[in-house]
Amino acid sequence: MEAYLDNSATTKVLPDVAQLMYKIMTEDYGNPSSMHNKGVDAERYIRQAKENFARILKVSDKEIFFTSGGTESDNLAIIGTALAKQRRGKHIITTAIEHPAVLESFDFLEKHGFEATYLPVNKYGQVEPDALRDALREDTILVSVMYVNNEIGALEPVAELGRIIKEYNKDIVFHVDAVQAFGKFRIYPYKENIDLLTVSSHKIHGPKGVGLIFIKDGTKIHPTAFGGGQQKGMRPGTENVPGIAGMSMAAAAMYEHFDEDVRRLYQLKEFFTERMEQTEGTVINGLTGEKSAPHVVSVSFEGIAKSEVLLHALEDRGIYVSSGSACSSNKPALSGTLKAIGVKRELLSSTLRFSFSVFTTMEELEYTVDVIRELLPVLRKYRPR
Amino acid sequence: MEAYLDNSATTKVLPDVAQLMYKIMTEDYGNPSSMHNKGVDAERYIRQAKENFARILKVSDKEIFFTSGGTESDNLAIIGTALAKQRRGKHIITTAIEHPAVLESFDFLEKHGFEATYLPVNKYGQVEPDALRDALREDTILVSVMYVNNEIGALEPVAELGRIIKEYNKDIVFHVDAVQAFGKFRIYPYKENIDLLTVSSHKIHGPKGVGLIFIKDGTKIHPTAFGGGQQKGMRPGTENVPGIAGMSMAAAAMYEHFDEDVRRLYQLKEFFTERMEQTEGTVINGLTGEKSAPHVVSVSFEGIAKSEVLLHALEDRGIYVSSGSACSSNKPALSGTLKAIGVKRELLSSTLRFSFSVFTTMEELEYTVDVIRELLPVLRKYRPR
Repeated sequence: MEAYLDNSATTKVLPDVAQLMYKIMTEDYGNPSSMHNKGVDAERYIRQAKENFARILKVSDKEIFFTSGGTESDNLAIIGTALAKQRRGKHIITTAIEHPAVLESFDFLEKHGFEATYLPVNKYGQVEPDALRDALREDTILVSVMYVNNEIGALEPVAELGRIIKEYNKDIVFHVDAVQAFGKFRIYPYKENIDLLTVSSHKIHGPKGVGLIFIKDGTKIHPTAFGGGQQKGMRPGTENVPGIAGMSMAAAAMYEHFDEDVRRLYQLKEFFTERMEQTEGTVINGLTGEKSAPHVVSVSFEGIAKSEVLLHALEDRGIYVSSGSACSSNKPALSGTLKAIGVKRELLSSTLRFSFSVFTTMEELEYTVDVIRELLPVLRKYRPR
Repeated sequence: MEAYLDNSATTKVLPDVAQLMYKIMTEDYGNPSSMHNKGVDAERYIRQAKENFARILKVSDKEIFFTSGGTESDNLAIIGTALAKQRRGKHIITTAIEHPAVLESFDFLEKHGFEATYLPVNKYGQVEPDALRDALREDTILVSVMYVNNEIGALEPVAELGRIIKEYNKDIVFHVDAVQAFGKFRIYPYKENIDLLTVSSHKIHGPKGVGLIFIKDGTKIHPTAFGGGQQKGMRPGTENVPGIAGMSMAAAAMYEHFDEDVRRLYQLKEFFTERMEQTEGTVINGLTGEKSAPHVVSVSFEGIAKSEVLLHALEDRGIYVSSGSACSSNKPALSGTLKAIGVKRELLSSTLRFSFSVFTTMEELEYTVDVIRELLPVLRKYRPR
């Protein structure tokens, strides 16, 4: 049996999506900037994708811009805002548990004269609204908070944070990295006071190499890419037409049977967390149930000094999971999120992330639970102590 | 009959390439950063692509970095060099006829305290080596020159320019945008003193949304994207595995029967330029024959006030061409290249670009010549004078 439980790292592309992309690449291959009808046909895919995302997010299609993925969208949100607003202020706020695409952008800005505040999180990985209230200043220009944490599935109180920010000063830009949340939550930027929103394609069964950023009309942001004026100059470069159309089709599929799919994901999560809690020497990190994301479970295993050992033992049985976030390239660095929520030192490197998709079955999870229960006593015997 | 003669705007993806991408998206969909074998399998595609490009360019695979396309590679080359070298100097040099991805990057840097020199070109669109010699200064940090111009197919004396730069000061970074040249010329960065080279996938029958930058070992350059450390931190973000593998396969195909393919392209160009020259009231812009690129022909049509009229009349007959470069999004702005080479004012908006690929046939060009000769007298009658 095979159980791919690394869907927060990346997902399998839907066959229909890959088929559509094949057709566009070999038949509708025009450059959207070309004036003839091969260009017009290509541009239509982009327009339809913008309309589709506008419908899903309840925004205008003019507010959707396609990028090469979550990292570029996060970079553009943060650095583009800094470029546009540096004369008004140089204070920027984020959290201790963001994705490296956010944290490294903040690091870059700190090296260029900006001052950053990193909000702490509680033991569930959530930002406390009061911490944000205390951090806001007159020279604050940007707050960046993720919707769902990629390592433990913590759900941030985005709507409340958005309200606090805008009550303090409506000119402060609120960026939300929704890479792990899009497709799992109904996200409406206008309702949650979100000015900039990052979405990635390859986490929702779309292709790698494409993402989008929602830029609320009127938000001051400078482009960080320069070229032929495509996408109103906000993100130039020949549009990745097959990637954009593929991501759009995947997103539509994610929201087609949304309620049913998400309910089933929570059932899977409930089953898996209960079984893990019943297993000796395990700790579930973060909240479970509907106060958390439906597809991510972080488990620390006592007596397993290196999670990689369990990871590879599971792999031998066809079960694919992550240690750490797997969004950092092969770096076995200790997780920032686990440290931030106060996971015991000896468990920091004993933690695995199990992440589900709509294709994950109860059978796969039953198999995974059985294999873990079989492996744990064996691996614990051989621990290097 | 259909004749797609807009291959400098974009090309049809090879069916084998699209098929490989389909397989990777639906089967080998792992995240290259994942530690299990689905990650390892995905990483192998990237490693093989790097090795393939290293072989083609006669460089090391450690010098190949994948991006989202030509625009990003150009941006990274120019802004990354500026970030790394701004303390040594702030003078940068390029030409008057570069792609907007280069010119707009220069414009951005000029707004941030850099001083730019734009080298003029002769009537064939070529930089005169003496002009570069005169422009070099002690505080020059970067020279960016395209290998082949996208609008008229001019071939720049890259090797000679590289020699002049390095004789003057070997610390000056030489960037070459080879988007229109890769696949049509054998390009060896080490031989031509090129430090940074831009290549795009969708101009060589690979997918859109992917490109690469060659960064010569030891070249000082800062990343302009920030994230999870992928590609040694030079270009973070989950790698576009299917796109990278697809581009690599397309490149291999371009160089498989290289001599034969390029010889045939020059024959096509010779046929087409001769027929155009024999057609009344036409002017070929730039050089023809082997002193120029084999796949681009720029023709000005006297008595056609707006080239779009001829473009759409050709389109009605299944012939697809460009007015201007089609790399600028739907902007009917007058071409910078045509102005720079001194095309007569009344012909600036009377010019079409015909660009071929290895799939272009003599039959298609014969048909195109016949249709043009049929249309010209009719359209000239109705010119708005």
